[in-house]
Amino acid sequence: MTQRIYVGVDLGGTSIKVGLCDEEGKLVQTFEGPTGTEHGPDYVLDRIEEYVRKLVSDSAYEWEQVAGIGAGIAGFLDIPNGFVELSPNLGWRNVAVKKTLEEKLGKTVTIDNDANVAALGEAWGGAGRGIANLVCYTLGTGVGGGIIINGKIYQGYNGMAGELGHMSVVPDVEAIACNCGQTGCLETVSSATGIVRMGNDAKERGDRTSLALIDTITAKDVFDAAKAGDEVSTRIVNRAAFYIGKSMAAVAITVNPQRFILGGGVSRAGEILFNPIRETFHKLAPERAYSGVEVVPATLGNDAGVVGAAGLNLR
Amino acid sequence: MTQRIYVGVDLGGTSIKVGLCDEEGKLVQTFEGPTGTEHGPDYVLDRIEEYVRKLVSDSAYEWEQVAGIGAGIAGFLDIPNGFVELSPNLGWRNVAVKKTLEEKLGKTVTIDNDANVAALGEAWGGAGRGIANLVCYTLGTGVGGGIIINGKIYQGYNGMAGELGHMSVVPDVEAIACNCGQTGCLETVSSATGIVRMGNDAKERGDRTSLALIDTITAKDVFDAAKAGDEVSTRIVNRAAFYIGKSMAAVAITVNPQRFILGGGVSRAGEILFNPIRETFHKLAPERAYSGVEVVPATLGNDAGVVGAAGLNLR
Repeated sequence: MTQRIYVGVDLGGTSIKVGLCDEEGKLVQTFEGPTGTEHGPDYVLDRIEEYVRKLVSDSAYEWEQVAGIGAGIAGFLDIPNGFVELSPNLGWRNVAVKKTLEEKLGKTVTIDNDANVAALGEAWGGAGRGIANLVCYTLGTGVGGGIIINGKIYQGYNGMAGELGHMSVVPDVEAIACNCGQTGCLETVSSATGIVRMGNDAKERGDRTSLALIDTITAKDVFDAAKAGDEVSTRIVNRAAFYIGKSMAAVAITVNPQRFILGGGVSRAGEILFNPIRETFHKLAPERAYSGVEVVPATLGNDAGVVGAAGLNLR
Repeated sequence: MTQRIYVGVDLGGTSIKVGLCDEEGKLVQTFEGPTGTEHGPDYVLDRIEEYVRKLVSDSAYEWEQVAGIGAGIAGFLDIPNGFVELSPNLGWRNVAVKKTLEEKLGKTVTIDNDANVAALGEAWGGAGRGIANLVCYTLGTGVGGGIIINGKIYQGYNGMAGELGHMSVVPDVEAIACNCGQTGCLETVSSATGIVRMGNDAKERGDRTSLALIDTITAKDVFDAAKAGDEVSTRIVNRAAFYIGKSMAAVAITVNPQRFILGGGVSRAGEILFNPIRETFHKLAPERAYSGVEVVPATLGNDAGVVGAAGLNLR
């Protein structure tokens, strides 16, 4: 029997990455090209067709072996209909991605949001390989999440399952407003943006910290300073970690996953972030909810999106 | 084709309730008898056999129509093996319920914990009929919960999915210890026990409240006083409601159910409890996570356990 292959599309605002996975979730070939967002949706959908056809024709596989094409897109999506309702970073409103691409490519096309897709990528071919039930956090500019149940993305009623960045975790007295309209969301403290904000606040307050010497503070600066022993930065890192661990405790007694996977730029900080996360998680959850449950870094890095998108058409 | 029927067993410390459901989750016949806990597990398992056989022989159905027997049990269970590891209210340790009853009855036997089973009962034949994804809270002496995904109980890795009473929701400064060993669990404030404790605290502090006139305060007393305009009792009810709503917001962005169902004695307080719960839920969750999501009372009352137990063998 001929091997089936799966195509994934990671649709970003500046570049489109396409990749080809085998049946075990191994990424065997990729291609990346500019999105051309400024030319509008029709142009971008043409580019996706072009890049996907090129990807497959440059590979050792035949077009007939393509079992399906998946795409990860940031924004509000109507997933069953493959419709982008609103994508701020692409400037799209009401774009029929699934229908258009299926006509162009003659293959089943499935879309899903970028955080869910990254979670599926890690579950299928990364840090969650072989684990049926897991939860991913993507710690980047914002905080995204994805719930994998029996190897599939779990969407929930309105597609809001796994929107862990908007768990209200910060007590009112310390809470600040989130882009989503709520206050005290996890994303306000545990994203790169939140960490940078806490660094800038410390600098403006005149706290004794090595961050005061940096013009434009990044999240990496805060982690580096903490690793070098800066107390103010250590407190910031611990605060970001505390709220991730706190949200994990809530997730653990709701879906009780076997593994938590943390990806995104912030997760690269390593054990200085992971240790206090695990400590808080264990402190705030019943033992049976964390016993045997690992908290591990993502392993696919920027490939998680393209692998997960490819995995959207797994049966 | 002959109609299949499902038998449910609600195994309590003082009585065993058995019931017979049709394929639509309608409870058509019940029987209740004493548990005889003091005589030990063998005696109790004999009673279950006796009551189940009597239930079916007194009904309009034949034994051959019984598709399976389910039992809801409070305690720590090894569900796949049908083993009760520890049940404090039965005084059981390591009892092979599934194996023993299958030998006695010659039918498939499935067990699950009481809160999960109540959730399944409401999902199948009660307030969740027709809804595939929902979350139940059982507000009684403690706070239990159950997560229903695609019409089935979702257990999670260690069977801890839906243990919502142990979500850490109360800020440290106000948190008290929970039986589970953590502090600040939902159960410490939003169970009948928590409400009674807050009533007693108010009385002992000498607060101006009609509760001061009551010797032994019950949760119902607190709700009745709140309904009659007692301010202290209203604050207690609002506090219990606030933390349920807060936990709901966390659950809503984790599994994003279509419906929340609240059962158990405390839920009978009605709108005085439900209104502030909905208010907090809407305040602390993104709109897409609560829009179209109903928060409704359970409708099966004490029958939820027996209906859900019967539903454990649905395919």
